[in-house]
Amino acid sequence: MKVGLIGAGRIGRIHAENIVHHIPRVQIARIADVAADKVRDWAKGLGITQVTTDVRELLADPEIEAVLVCSSTDTHADIVVAAAEKGKHMFCEKPVDLTLERARACADAVAQADVVCMIGFQRRFDPTFSALKARVEAGEIGDPEMLVITSRDPGAPPIEYIKHSGGIFKDMLIHDFDVFRWMLDDEADTLHATGSSLSDPAIAAAGDIDSTAVTIRTKRGRLCQINTARRAAYGYDQRFELLGSLGMLQAGNVRPTQVTAYSRTAVSSDVPEAFFLERYRTAYALEIAHFFEAVQDGKPVRTTVADGLKALELADAATRSWREGRIIKLGAA
Amino acid sequence: MKVGLIGAGRIGRIHAENIVHHIPRVQIARIADVAADKVRDWAKGLGITQVTTDVRELLADPEIEAVLVCSSTDTHADIVVAAAEKGKHMFCEKPVDLTLERARACADAVAQADVVCMIGFQRRFDPTFSALKARVEAGEIGDPEMLVITSRDPGAPPIEYIKHSGGIFKDMLIHDFDVFRWMLDDEADTLHATGSSLSDPAIAAAGDIDSTAVTIRTKRGRLCQINTARRAAYGYDQRFELLGSLGMLQAGNVRPTQVTAYSRTAVSSDVPEAFFLERYRTAYALEIAHFFEAVQDGKPVRTTVADGLKALELADAATRSWREGRIIKLGAA
Amino acid sequence: MKVGLIGAGRIGRIHAENIVHHIPRVQIARIADVAADKVRDWAKGLGITQVTTDVRELLADPEIEAVLVCSSTDTHADIVVAAAEKGKHMFCEKPVDLTLERARACADAVAQADVVCMIGFQRRFDPTFSALKARVEAGEIGDPEMLVITSRDPGAPPIEYIKHSGGIFKDMLIHDFDVFRWMLDDEADTLHATGSSLSDPAIAAAGDIDSTAVTIRTKRGRLCQINTARRAAYGYDQRFELLGSLGMLQAGNVRPTQVTAYSRTAVSSDVPEAFFLERYRTAYALEIAHFFEAVQDGKPVRTTVADGLKALELADAATRSWREGRIIKLGAA
Amino acid sequence: MKVGLIGAGRIGRIHAENIVHHIPRVQIARIADVAADKVRDWAKGLGITQVTTDVRELLADPEIEAVLVCSSTDTHADIVVAAAEKGKHMFCEKPVDLTLERARACADAVAQADVVCMIGFQRRFDPTFSALKARVEAGEIGDPEMLVITSRDPGAPPIEYIKHSGGIFKDMLIHDFDVFRWMLDDEADTLHATGSSLSDPAIAAAGDIDSTAVTIRTKRGRLCQINTARRAAYGYDQRFELLGSLGMLQAGNVRPTQVTAYSRTAVSSDVPEAFFLERYRTAYALEIAHFFEAVQDGKPVRTTVADGLKALELADAATRSWREGRIIKLGAA
Repeated sequence: MKVGLIGAGRIGRIHAENIVHHIPRVQIARIADVAADKVRDWAKGLGITQVTTDVRELLADPEIEAVLVCSSTDTHADIVVAAAEKGKHMFCEKPVDLTLERARACADAVAQADVVCMIGFQRRFDPTFSALKARVEAGEIGDPEMLVITSRDPGAPPIEYIKHSGGIFKDMLIHDFDVFRWMLDDEADTLHATGSSLSDPAIAAAGDIDSTAVTIRTKRGRLCQINTARRAAYGYDQRFELLGSLGMLQAGNVRPTQVTAYSRTAVSSDVPEAFFLERYRTAYALEIAHFFEAVQDGKPVRTTVADGLKALELADAATRSWREGRIIKLGAA
Repeated sequence: MKVGLIGAGRIGRIHAENIVHHIPRVQIARIADVAADKVRDWAKGLGITQVTTDVRELLADPEIEAVLVCSSTDTHADIVVAAAEKGKHMFCEKPVDLTLERARACADAVAQADVVCMIGFQRRFDPTFSALKARVEAGEIGDPEMLVITSRDPGAPPIEYIKHSGGIFKDMLIHDFDVFRWMLDDEADTLHATGSSLSDPAIAAAGDIDSTAVTIRTKRGRLCQINTARRAAYGYDQRFELLGSLGMLQAGNVRPTQVTAYSRTAVSSDVPEAFFLERYRTAYALEIAHFFEAVQDGKPVRTTVADGLKALELADAATRSWREGRIIKLGAA
Repeated sequence: MKVGLIGAGRIGRIHAENIVHHIPRVQIARIADVAADKVRDWAKGLGITQVTTDVRELLADPEIEAVLVCSSTDTHADIVVAAAEKGKHMFCEKPVDLTLERARACADAVAQADVVCMIGFQRRFDPTFSALKARVEAGEIGDPEMLVITSRDPGAPPIEYIKHSGGIFKDMLIHDFDVFRWMLDDEADTLHATGSSLSDPAIAAAGDIDSTAVTIRTKRGRLCQINTARRAAYGYDQRFELLGSLGMLQAGNVRPTQVTAYSRTAVSSDVPEAFFLERYRTAYALEIAHFFEAVQDGKPVRTTVADGLKALELADAATRSWREGRIIKLGAA
Repeated sequence: MKVGLIGAGRIGRIHAENIVHHIPRVQIARIADVAADKVRDWAKGLGITQVTTDVRELLADPEIEAVLVCSSTDTHADIVVAAAEKGKHMFCEKPVDLTLERARACADAVAQADVVCMIGFQRRFDPTFSALKARVEAGEIGDPEMLVITSRDPGAPPIEYIKHSGGIFKDMLIHDFDVFRWMLDDEADTLHATGSSLSDPAIAAAGDIDSTAVTIRTKRGRLCQINTARRAAYGYDQRFELLGSLGMLQAGNVRPTQVTAYSRTAVSSDVPEAFFLERYRTAYALEIAHFFEAVQDGKPVRTTVADGLKALELADAATRSWREGRIIKLGAA
């Protein structure tokens, strides 16, 4: 099966390397990247020689059955619609788009073309998170009642990135909103979000915040609290815990090593894996393998374009809740 | 120093026993309890023979310099005012009262009489919590930014208790609101609370909830999330974590033993201490010792009647936020 | 019940305070101590006024039914024999004596007088250790097969103490040998011990060692390894683990608080409790309560003089194994 | 660089797959295996078509610069000598041979031919173990004093395997002996080993044991205790801890996921990774990469044939210590 890679930046390269090393039946036939010249050497090392700046050229190749959309977010919607029209299956990095309108247009195009469109919510493939989900589904904690998500980056991205990120809720919490829906298997009824800019005045100046506290009450009355920060001095912090009627399950961070040190003053172990590339290394590999299995076996993907849309709706509601200082009723106009 | 105990129920007895066993310079001279007959045997075992049903009789004893107010919540306010008028120092169990008005009247009476009135927020004396606070004050994590409090009981009290409890926010979260103020050394600006009744329909029928999610944004922009439940199948869960600009501090649960078991299927350790009497055993002892040290040395108490009032204001705001489905601005009319 | 305390040093005072504060039916009627003058103030604080330097005077008091032998080790044997002759029950600190001969004489005297003689192996009363033992007895790990004991002090005692200690095996490992017998419910068949002086040349000059490695094979073929050190920079380290046919149980250290700190470089928690007075605080209280319960109810004590003798035999064998560089067959001439 | 794989069993295949997927500059040109027919399909999947039963044919290929010796232990010595004579570099699985004589002959042949011969002690490449070693070398715990190694398999291999394994010390503890030398950077002076057959009478009938306790005292007086078992019900247990003058470092097990479960009765997490293929997955990848880097850059390998010989000497001494019931002096005739 031949596939095309659109966007060979950090995340695009991870997917490409996972395919080359671990999915022998899939071949990356073409790469399109706005900076094609900077990509060629790396691509050659993987045995890929067709590198272009022209996405349309890639999409026009009839041998290419699927594309990986890893370009910048503002390009996603056009590519998704175009790829759907060409009948290509798609793996698209999150978010589909920063606006609900364009994201809905993508979902419509995908539905009409009847192609697979999987969204890159890699956390659903993290071994710890997915093991926890399986245990919830097996009934280990009875009915889920309360979810607490802690999601913190090791540091804020450059302010230029933040300015075009769509805001912290769409850029960072979109993953947490997806984890919320996945873990509780329920939909939001009301959402409250607040936040502050505590680490850098430039973030506030850019109209954004770096610390947020979100509360969701679901249609079935379950509760979810999400706390996030752009800067955790100790590294990338990705935990959640789910209280149910019969017990609780916690998903903890991953430590690089299992060394424990005893000094005069403390017993200490490693800080968590540094950032998402390390923390979700295995998740990225499992995610992309899942995509190709689903495409080839005609099975449903775990993270659909509808999931992407739902997460975006929550991110949009959170943004409004924070900006307008009010509780948002989901599903209401 | 002679003291009087008013109310010799579960918590009153704990204080009395701590005094008898560990504070030799303090003598419990009299006990007043509505069920004096049920108290006599226990009192005798501690060498206390003066047991009455009449609080006024106890307060009239000029030799008694201080009283412990451990009777039911609805009696607190009258006793506090009366004791203040008699010039007695007081240790008063939380909450001062279920209504803000009467609580304020108590604070006024205490101020006018210039007596000590310490409120029983024992968590401030828990070795783990107070060690954490000391480390925050020493600057270990820089500026505090986000506090996440998990506070769960092992099971709901009888429905009759719940009906007269003032609601979950005044009965249960009042401790968490005090921890919030203590840990962040800041005051609430806005508060949002929501919740559900998930464990028992009788709780909903009584107009209360058993699961809550509260978010507070402070005057300085700091964030606090509190999640509580009346029922955690695994026991009493009392944790919090405080993210600061330089790191994070977590306060964990206490395990009865340090046994770890490796079976075919799991590596396991003890569930947390069963409930507050076990979890805060040391805190209760330190709390009551602190009260008498403060009284005798003329030093300020760690938890004043003003603290009790502030916590009650937050509990009141949370109740309104939940009932009215809106964000509450503190300090506003 | 009236008792006499012989030796009011560090450990004698702990026992006395536990009795005064927690065992109302027992009264310490007399104290004998070589430095009686230094003891009087402390004794008075506990309400004990009869303080003498003369042990015989104390033993001659017919009202005294039991004595606590907490004087220096070299005085134990004479006191035990004399107390047995007077028909007193005894709680005797470990070791009974540094020589097997005198320890055996003590055991004989106790047997003939038919009095209770409990040896102060407080670890058997540690909540973690005794919970683990109960789980072994309940069959949780099947047949016990291998025991690994880690037993390290935070620092070596003064060299003068070491010179009169009887050597590390009798002074320090005697507790571990008792834990071995208790946990495996089995007796040693062969024993190998080796060691080194690594922390201080004065210890080697005194003919002793500060680090030991002992291996015992039991009559039933079970294995036990003990590693000890006089100096663990991180504090008092008291752990063991027991592998059985169906699983493993570990006894871990106790931390003063449950604070976990996340810094840029490490996730850290408290070092273990500083030394035995802190680590075994609860064990000491339970131990002395057990003694009086056994005496008053006529029930067997958990740690008999025979247990003391057996532990001493192992300590003696270990000393010989180390000195002579050979494996010792227990029970052989 | 072209290499040959001799022996395509479980471990041979792991090395081959790591090379194919992760070391692009190395090509497996030929495979020799006694059951060549059973190997072809797997080899084809990796793009390797030259599969033979004849080791000599493989060694005769002048294009092959290095060989991986992954055949059964009894074939190692002949292959190593033959490969050395042909000037091939070698990666040889442990142990070199079950007899010291033949292992020494291998070492001599390697030395004479001046080829690289790395022994497959993969634990030295485990991220946790090697991080700990680096911290020891950086001085974090001062002078190393005592090493405690816990090394337990999840279950005994088939009795037929055990009969030809050379005994537990050569088959299983050889890794622990290498860890001992690596961690303490010191050599054994005396060694004591004992053991029992506790899990299966057939093991005793085969003249072997399943549980061992080994103590080594080094030339510098450091102590090491190793405890091993063929059967740990909870899985593969690979831990060690190193006490030094300034602190302690522990290497813990790896858990498959970071899920923690709170039930009514316990707080539990995953048992360790199931067995060596899972536990040392990363170590195997790093080990084989290290071999090729060393060969290509002319740098020393981390685990030489001399290390293999030293570990075998310890295994041999342990076997004698256990069989003869005596302490072995190393370096003595």
